[in-house]
Amino acid sequence: MRARVFVTLKPSVFDPQGRTIAESLHSMGYVGISDVRQGKYFELELDAPSADQARELASDVASRVLANPVIESYRIEIG
Amino acid sequence: MRARVFVTLKPSVFDPQGRTIAESLHSMGYVGISDVRQGKYFELELDAPSADQARELASDVASRVLANPVIESYRIEIG
Repeated sequence: MRARVFVTLKPSVFDPQGRTIAESLHSMGYVGISDVRQGKYFELELDAPSADQARELASDVASRVLANPVIESYRIEIG
Repeated sequence: MRARVFVTLKPSVFDPQGRTIAESLHSMGYVGISDVRQGKYFELELDAPSADQARELASDVASRVLANPVIESYRIEIG
């Protein structure tokens, strides 16, 4: 079963990398892009008997390893 | 309008970062996770009159700036 994990900085946390990308895009002429936020994306292949158990395992891994819960939040999609 | 861009290494490209995460997870006891692939995730805030135009703009930015089309592929979601 495949789990997809999206890790993003919490909205209150400044994202200098995204800011730099947005400024580069402006200087390239993409003026219609007002903001960019960068995050991380993971695809996990896991052995789990059900989607619920896959989600639980992915959530455990995300909160312990893939994301820093102090400044980041994560979202999980199964399948 | 918000566009979400997912950039992943093409399946034929070796992902050492994902491999390292998978091995770390195994050593932590997560034996049910057979593979991990890491990618990048971007949220773009853009001014576009329609979802189609937003997708076109995001696709242009993704192929020119956010992804390296030689080794990476990308996927876009609007809204």
